[in-house]
Formats: sequence, C-alpha cells, structure tokens
Amino acid sequence: MSLTDVLNRIDRDLPAATDRLIELLRIPSISTDSAYKSECERAADWLVADLKSLGATAEKRPTPGHPMVVGHVDGPGPHLLFYGHYDVQPVDPLDLWDRDPFDPALEKTDAGQVIRGRGSSDDKGQLMTFVEACRAWKEEHGTLPCKITFFFEGEEESGSPSLVPYMKENAKELTADIALICDTGLFDSSVPAITTMLRGLLGEDFTITGPNRDLHSGMYGGLAMNPIRVLTKILSGLHDDTGRITLDGFYDGVPELPDEIRAQWQGLNFDHAAFLDEVGLKEPAGEQDRTPLEQIWSRPSCDVNGIWGGYTGDGFKTVLPSKASAKLSFRLVGSQDPDAIRKTFRTYLENSLPPGFTVEYRTEKGSPAAQMSVQDPSFEKARQALSDEWPKAAAYVGCGGSIPIAGYFKDLLGMDAMLIGFGKDDDQIHSPNEKYDLESFHKGTRSWARILDALTR
Amino acid sequence: MSLTDVLNRIDRDLPAATDRLIELLRIPSISTDSAYKSECERAADWLVADLKSLGATAEKRPTPGHPMVVGHVDGPGPHLLFYGHYDVQPVDPLDLWDRDPFDPALEKTDAGQVIRGRGSSDDKGQLMTFVEACRAWKEEHGTLPCKITFFFEGEEESGSPSLVPYMKENAKELTADIALICDTGLFDSSVPAITTMLRGLLGEDFTITGPNRDLHSGMYGGLAMNPIRVLTKILSGLHDDTGRITLDGFYDGVPELPDEIRAQWQGLNFDHAAFLDEVGLKEPAGEQDRTPLEQIWSRPSCDVNGIWGGYTGDGFKTVLPSKASAKLSFRLVGSQDPDAIRKTFRTYLENSLPPGFTVEYRTEKGSPAAQMSVQDPSFEKARQALSDEWPKAAAYVGCGGSIPIAGYFKDLLGMDAMLIGFGKDDDQIHSPNEKYDLESFHKGTRSWARILDALTR
Repeated sequence: MSLTDVLNRIDRDLPAATDRLIELLRIPSISTDSAYKSECERAADWLVADLKSLGATAEKRPTPGHPMVVGHVDGPGPHLLFYGHYDVQPVDPLDLWDRDPFDPALEKTDAGQVIRGRGSSDDKGQLMTFVEACRAWKEEHGTLPCKITFFFEGEEESGSPSLVPYMKENAKELTADIALICDTGLFDSSVPAITTMLRGLLGEDFTITGPNRDLHSGMYGGLAMNPIRVLTKILSGLHDDTGRITLDGFYDGVPELPDEIRAQWQGLNFDHAAFLDEVGLKEPAGEQDRTPLEQIWSRPSCDVNGIWGGYTGDGFKTVLPSKASAKLSFRLVGSQDPDAIRKTFRTYLENSLPPGFTVEYRTEKGSPAAQMSVQDPSFEKARQALSDEWPKAAAYVGCGGSIPIAGYFKDLLGMDAMLIGFGKDDDQIHSPNEKYDLESFHKGTRSWARILDALTR
Repeated sequence: MSLTDVLNRIDRDLPAATDRLIELLRIPSISTDSAYKSECERAADWLVADLKSLGATAEKRPTPGHPMVVGHVDGPGPHLLFYGHYDVQPVDPLDLWDRDPFDPALEKTDAGQVIRGRGSSDDKGQLMTFVEACRAWKEEHGTLPCKITFFFEGEEESGSPSLVPYMKENAKELTADIALICDTGLFDSSVPAITTMLRGLLGEDFTITGPNRDLHSGMYGGLAMNPIRVLTKILSGLHDDTGRITLDGFYDGVPELPDEIRAQWQGLNFDHAAFLDEVGLKEPAGEQDRTPLEQIWSRPSCDVNGIWGGYTGDGFKTVLPSKASAKLSFRLVGSQDPDAIRKTFRTYLENSLPPGFTVEYRTEKGSPAAQMSVQDPSFEKARQALSDEWPKAAAYVGCGGSIPIAGYFKDLLGMDAMLIGFGKDDDQIHSPNEKYDLESFHKGTRSWARILDALTR
C-alpha cells in the first residue's frame, strides 16, 4: 500500500530531515527587529531552494517588508494551499537560554529527544513537517498526490503588515479548495487536535508624555504629575477585582459557549492546576465565573506585554520622567470588533490623562477571532487521519492565540482553513529555550502524509 | 578694604576659573554606574591637585565605593567644613542632549551665558564656587581667613553608601564649628536662599516574579496572572484621587507648617502656574488641600522613578512576562521614620501579591528629613552677606530634595549645616542639557567670599 511506503520512507529519512530543519533554524530570521532584515531574506532563499528540490516552481516575492515565498506543484484535484511562517520571535532575555538560540541541536531529555533553538516549534519545525511529508511522497511516487500551493510568510511574529495587501493582489494565485495551516499544537502528547476556534488580536503600543523633560523628583516630586503614576492608573483600571475587563462595551459580541462544545471540553479532563503549576502559578487570573479552558480558548483577555519609563539601569536615579510607555494586547473572540475596541480603549486612555498630558500611538493593527465550519467533510477526513497516527482520537479544540491568516483565508479568498499542528504546551515558544519534540517533528510529518492520502483518495 | 580686593580678583579671574571648572566637567564621574569607576577616581585626583594648589594638605581617601577627598587649611577660628560632591548623574536619554554631556562649553543664551554639561550645576559648578572664593582670598592675602576643612564625596548621586561609615570612622578629623554645603539653589534670579528644611528620602528598587518563565500571551493570556498587571495595581494604589498617599500611618510625624513660615512663603509670591508651565504641566499633582510650595518643601511625596517589564524593543511581542520591576522613592518630612515607612510599604506590597508570586528587593536605604536651627547667629551673618551680593534680601526656604549629609553632620558630628547654593530652577539637573549660569558661578564665588568675611570678621 502506497501510504505505508511513504510512512516508512519518513521513518528512514528522519535524521536527514532533522539536519535540514537545523540548517533552517540557524538563520536568525527575527522579523520584528530591522537589524535582522537580511536574515529574513536568507531564510526565504533557503525555502525557495528547498521547494525547488521537491520539483515545485518556487519564488521569493518582494513586499514592503519581508518577502513571501510562494511555490506550486501541479497535479490532480483537490487543490491544497499550505501556509507556514519562516520568521521567529526575538530571543531576549538572552541570558536565560541554555544555548545560543541560533545554534540549534538535538538534545536528549528525560521526556525524549528535542530539537532546541528559536523557531524550532514556532514555526520552522512545524512548517517543515508538511514539506518533509511532501518530499517523502515525491521520492516514493515521483509525483505529489494533488495540486499544492506553498505559501510562507516572513512577518507573522511582527503583525503581518504585508499579508493582507499581498493576498488581495494575488488572490487568484493563492485561492485553493482548502488551506492547511501548521502553527498550532497537540491537545496533549496523546491527543492530536484540529483547532476550530481562534482568538483575534488587537495590539496597542503607546507613550504618554507629561512634563516636557525629565525632572528631579526632589525639586518637583509631589507637585509635578508623574507619567508612570498616570500609566499605572490607566493600566490597573483595565480589570476589575473579578478579572473582568472594564472597558465600555468590551464584551459586545462575545458568545456563550454552545453546550455540546462545553461538554466536549469537559471530556478533555484539562488539569488547570497542573497547567498553572508547570509555569509556577497557583490561581487563574481570568474571569472568576469561567473555567480555565474557557478563559484561554473562548473568552477575551487583555495583557500588558511591555512597560517602560524612567531610569531602569543599575543603582538609583531620582528622576520624575517626562514619558512612560506600554505595549498591550487584547485577545478577541466571537464577533468582537477590533476597531470598536481600539476606539473604546483610546477614549478611556485619553479621558484618564491629566490636563496637559499627550499620548502617541505606534500601532494600528487588529484582527477579529475566527471560527471554522467543521461541517466540511475534509475536517472529518483529516480528524480520522490524525486519529490513525496518534494514540488517541483527535479533537476539535479552541486556541488562545491569534492566527489571523485563518480569518484572511476565509474573508479574502473564501477558503476554509484547517489548523493542524504538533506543538506542545512546554515548547516554550516566544520564551528562552524554545524546543520542538523530535516526536512532534516525526509523527507530525507522518500525520501530513496520512492527511494528504485521506484528502486525495 | 580686603573683601573688596578679593571680590575684584574674583571678577578678574572669572575666565580662568571657568576654564578650571570646564576641565573638571570633562571627567564623566557617574557614580551609579560601575563602568565609570576609574573616572570617579580621576575626578577625585583632579580635586586633590586643585586643593594642593591652594596650599591645603589634601588626599584621596579610599572607601569600599568611590573615594572621599579631604583637605585641610590651618588658620584661626572659626573652623569651617565645606562639603560638595564630585560625582554626577547618568546622562540618558543621550539623544535629548544638544551636545556631548562631557564636552562642556560656555554658551550664549537669551538669558545670559551658561556653562553647559553634566554636573555643571549638580554639583561640580557649585562646589567650585567655594574653592574659587578660597583661591582668590589666598592669592590676595597669602592665607585663608580661618581654619577650613574641605570634604568632597563621590557617591552622592548613588545613595552615599560609604558616607556614614566614613564619617563615623573619621569623626574627629571632620568635626568643625559649622558645615557649609553648596548643593542647593537660589529662590529665584534675584533672591538668594539659605535652605533650612530638607526632605528625607526612602528608595525602593524591586522585582516581582509571577510565572517561572516568559509565556506566550496567546496560550496563557487570561488564565495566567501577568506581573505587570499586579505591579500597576500596586503602584496605582499608592495615591488616592486627592493626591494623598494611602499607606497606613504614612503621615505619622508630618508636622503642620508654623504660621510664621507659612506667612514668609506667601511673601515669596511663588508662581506655581509658571513653575509648572515651564515644564509643560498644567495642574499640581500633590494633595489637593495644600499649596504648591507646601507640596514640594514641606509635604511628603511618592514617585515611581523607573518601571520596566516584558518586551520593550521595536515592534510587538505578545509575551506575558515572568517579571516586572520598579524603582520608587518617597520624599519624607518632619519626623517621618524611613524604616517604619519601608516596613509599611513592603507589607502593602506583599499583601497585594497573588498566591505564588514573590518579590525581591535591591535597596536598603533611607534618610529622615532635616531641619536647621536658624537661631545660631552664623545663619543671620551669612544671610546678610548673601543679601549684600544679590539684588534682594536672602530668604530661609525649604527644599524638596534630600541632602542627607546635612542630617548626618548634625546627628554624627553635632554640627549645624548651612545650605547655600546658586542653582536655578531651569538648570535641568538630572536631565539632558544640564547647565549652570555663568552668573551663578560668578556671583556664587563672590557670595562665598562675603560669607567667609562675615563669619570670620
């Protein structure tokens, strides 16, 4: 049987596939930091060459930011589009890494072998599971089972500023029957997942200015209003004592969870105490009347991702600073409207500023939440294929993170998207010591081979 | 008349005196940053050499931190001790300086000539007014009018960790009849001042830790408690809506202003609107039922001097950080007890932490407020001497800043201290583009010659 041959080839080829991934991980393609622009180009070039080795016509496509990589393999139907991103998060604080984040290696751990390095799980390792599945299929059969478009982005970790314009301009080329996205996780080591609910994201990056220069707190302290005092007041006012977000109308468009989904989630036996304990916490921070899984999968949230102001070096400086800054993000669900929430937030912020204070915003981005139509039979075929590979049956789950691309595929190209990934909760994506389990990489590649088979049989 | 000869010599010698000050300002003696340790040594060496040129026996004295400079000139009574500090504040943000902070120069401005550079006003320029007065006196008369001890510190801008132990160990050598300190300002361009009330200072520098590592806000946002959210809640709770500090017992030991002092301050016609407008602010931030002069001279305050946490670089990183940090300072008055307030603050902070959160403190410093005994006739002699030099009569004033040395002279050595200085509100000390008016430097030097004359006649 042909699928078995492909799976066997994937097993034999694992060491070489791992070496290829490590080569890609060596490229520090940090998209948010302009110092790494040429490295993003280099990662795109690497992928173009790799896709060509599969027989695809592949090109680097320029954008105002980092390039897209687009590749095509012709074949019979259906037409699948596969999306992944080759850019990675910054690596600070660097001193918390046990090794150079861009000198990746296979490491033995108590829980099995892992590939350690920035981007190993998010998203280079995941992206390569699909590429390696295609490579094994091609090598075994001389051809791929269907028409496939590869679409790799280099700005996912920095808000994807070029994505929507690019998709609009190239809508015809990028439209397929269904999109496959590999940027999510397993539910746990034995339960694979197809993510069907994704939170949206609204980011705000701003600086408030009070005094026109830094002041000596001895001379002015008590009389001059300190921007840090103003900022802490604004930020601390965003949540009430029960964990609820206080902005007017914030919960407009937040749906209640359907009973059948609630029942399915209860069946997952999510251990929220263990989930929090693993990261050193004891109590959930979200709305007190919601379960922890609801809090991360189906409820909106607000987090300050960065704050800075005044003197932050060694020692002491009794400065009353001129400015204070913060970056914050809202995770959105249901039909919450990013534009309306931005407006409400800015109104709240500006109404909280003392006379004479000003605010400068540096961001204008937001994406609504996405909900997939699992009635499409492809979803059930893929769920069966995943269930064949892993110890337990695959589940339809929610996801706390934002993968705006899924919404764009639906809204701009009219395609449904299947979000299937093999990351684990302890992969430390966006954190020091990011890793991807060798098992995720191996069984992930096998999973895609099974899904290709299931969708084209 | 001998004083006139000294004053004339000061006038003639002003260009050379300015060059000497500029030489000292070129040494970047930033005490709080260990990278500048050797520069602090170099500034101390420069002062030792300069004091020797006045005929003083002068030495650099080692401490666990930066060295003290101690010099003696023998002579008839009274015995005066002069204190100043040769260390300076850090210079960031560097991009707001119009010139290299350590490449000082004389600049023409609409308001007259200024000496621009870090430390020009705080405190190298002020320190040198006394040294230059002594130089002119010595050159005119061949000797100084009385016994003088020079005592220069190199850690004033970083909390003076070595000062108290050094003063205790060298109490006999440092005890004089009265101390003179030049580290304060004029009341305004025409009214000189002797500062008789100084606020104390209590600093806290701490980090709170929640999750044991940085988390992805998509995966954990809403469920995991964010340390920045906790920190902003703690800091914003320190003031109520009327500007009053909320810590239990914080106002214990805060005296009401005596009626005669209140009347004297009302007579100063302080224009608080102009004072705030000059720094770009519109409303006072302190207790609503207190006048602005009270707020900065005789009421306690609390300011966050620095805050940081999460991702603060370019672009966006949806991190839920493990840690958040702040530096804050309380200005103290009357008999407020720094140790008691530290304890109250820490109790408040620790009671505000969610279960599982921890806090680490990096500072242990505090100094009470100081009040001088203006009944000592030296105060009135000095006030007269100042009134002779400047357009209007000198005033006894308060000071919002903390100059703990004044309290130490009283408590450890039993000496009163006279705080006389020539800085101006717009000197931008601790800020970019610090300057010292050439007039302050010139008339300040002349003022000390008059005071030396008045105290020794």
